[in-house]
Amino acid sequence: MHALVIHGGAGVIPDRISDSRHLQYMESLGRILDRGFEILESGGSSLDAVTRAVRLLEDDPLYNAGHGAGLARDGSAEMDAAIMDGRDRSAGAVAAVKHVRNPIELARRVMEKSRHVMLVGAGAEEFALEEGMDLVPNNYFRTDHRRQELEDEQRGCRREDIVRPSQGTVGAVALDRGGNLAAATSTGGMSNKLPGRVGDSPIIGAGTYAKNGVCAVSATGQGEFFIRSVAAYHIAAGVEYRGLSLEDAVHELIHGILPEIRGLGGIIAIDAEGNIVMDFNTLGMFRAERHVLGRRTISITR
Amino acid sequence: MHALVIHGGAGVIPDRISDSRHLQYMESLGRILDRGFEILESGGSSLDAVTRAVRLLEDDPLYNAGHGAGLARDGSAEMDAAIMDGRDRSAGAVAAVKHVRNPIELARRVMEKSRHVMLVGAGAEEFALEEGMDLVPNNYFRTDHRRQELEDEQRGCRREDIVRPSQGTVGAVALDRGGNLAAATSTGGMSNKLPGRVGDSPIIGAGTYAKNGVCAVSATGQGEFFIRSVAAYHIAAGVEYRGLSLEDAVHELIHGILPEIRGLGGIIAIDAEGNIVMDFNTLGMFRAERHVLGRRTISITR
Repeated sequence: MHALVIHGGAGVIPDRISDSRHLQYMESLGRILDRGFEILESGGSSLDAVTRAVRLLEDDPLYNAGHGAGLARDGSAEMDAAIMDGRDRSAGAVAAVKHVRNPIELARRVMEKSRHVMLVGAGAEEFALEEGMDLVPNNYFRTDHRRQELEDEQRGCRREDIVRPSQGTVGAVALDRGGNLAAATSTGGMSNKLPGRVGDSPIIGAGTYAKNGVCAVSATGQGEFFIRSVAAYHIAAGVEYRGLSLEDAVHELIHGILPEIRGLGGIIAIDAEGNIVMDFNTLGMFRAERHVLGRRTISITR
Repeated sequence: MHALVIHGGAGVIPDRISDSRHLQYMESLGRILDRGFEILESGGSSLDAVTRAVRLLEDDPLYNAGHGAGLARDGSAEMDAAIMDGRDRSAGAVAAVKHVRNPIELARRVMEKSRHVMLVGAGAEEFALEEGMDLVPNNYFRTDHRRQELEDEQRGCRREDIVRPSQGTVGAVALDRGGNLAAATSTGGMSNKLPGRVGDSPIIGAGTYAKNGVCAVSATGQGEFFIRSVAAYHIAAGVEYRGLSLEDAVHELIHGILPEIRGLGGIIAIDAEGNIVMDFNTLGMFRAERHVLGRRTISITR
């Protein structure tokens, strides 16, 4: 039994988004889903599958992560990412990095090569250099689309006036043939954020969590609310200790806990039996799932 | 009903620590406990009580937070802190700050004055300046004791050879007369850490958590393990959703979950009825509690 689920962000997905743009997203999500699924098909690990899927999502300027990341108030791209291995609950996370082409690769190095879980800012980039990774100029991440988005935001356009289809984070969760669960999440964070702001993506238990025998979770949405509700672990603890189905645990978080504090966003999750849940309280969420039993779906709206 | 609990770190507290040093800690813990408790006595909020207690712990060079913080590999002090208000689960956190005299004060500003929960590094200090806070030179935080500790660590002394009584973090949890819970935690992190390393203290749900009607929790110990086990929220979710007593929930974390991944540390916690738990799986934990019903204890070893 193996399966992969990916997301490319939840949020306001305006009706006015063009058909051709819709097609672009559908094509991109499907291609990345299949590239990640290949790893599971050939007996590879869920950890490798989520790493590859998130790396490809980071490389695609359609999404708010890596190339195409949302920009901070000062116009720079600052990125966060995390990965967790359900086998032993080892985890790696980076935040506020500005020159690492694939933040998810650095998060994985932190997990595998350091005695730490989380590194931020210049210290994280020092570690990247020590690990032999090349740094790239911040300009690599900044697209014209994101510059425009930031300008609109700073000029005070109402949110609804701005077409921001990829405002969310990216992420992936997977179950491999060996029964191992893994989760990975990566983001440029919210547009016009204060420099140094960290959202939920790199916070283990908030935006990212995985434990074998329980579930793997990746979140997207207004990070502050996911941090305050410890979203990913709320779901996992519901499954592990309260006997909730994955569907009920995600539902409680998205439609019960988050609304209490007026939080918006979405979750993708998979449990040890390969049950998949993709739920959100926004208008839409870019998402795709592929299951060894034959199901392959790509969706944007409800 | 009101009560305050504080900690000054858990860890290896060698027998050889001198009697006069023991007395110093006992005196300091008692004094800070009473200063925080004054606020609760006079009808102040649990939020103000934990803020004051942690600020005083930061100012005292005996502890690994603020003045006297443990030093990173490059010899600089880099500090993390978080605070959470149980009333509405609002939260503020900072990490890898190097020039903010009282990191807990900055965490509180992030909670109250920004739309974010967590700021790190230079961005956090930019926000501090915008809020009118003075920055201080990094040298303010570095004590001779910590320089020696770092040197010993880098020379490869075995841990047991080093007297490191205050290797842990500081923190406070409180319940006020209005029934409001609050938690605060602050740390210099582990000695000889990589620059940019973030531990559990500023991670909401790992080192710090509070929710009215449930409990307030502050952790100390090997941060990486508390992050991976989402320690503070594991306890809170046990109380809220599984009907565990606070004592049982803390016990499960400290003596069940943490040992699974070989994690060491301690927890202080208080629930909505004013029940206090201080538990650890290390040799000792600097801790003190004061309860309106008259109990006042200060302890270091078991």
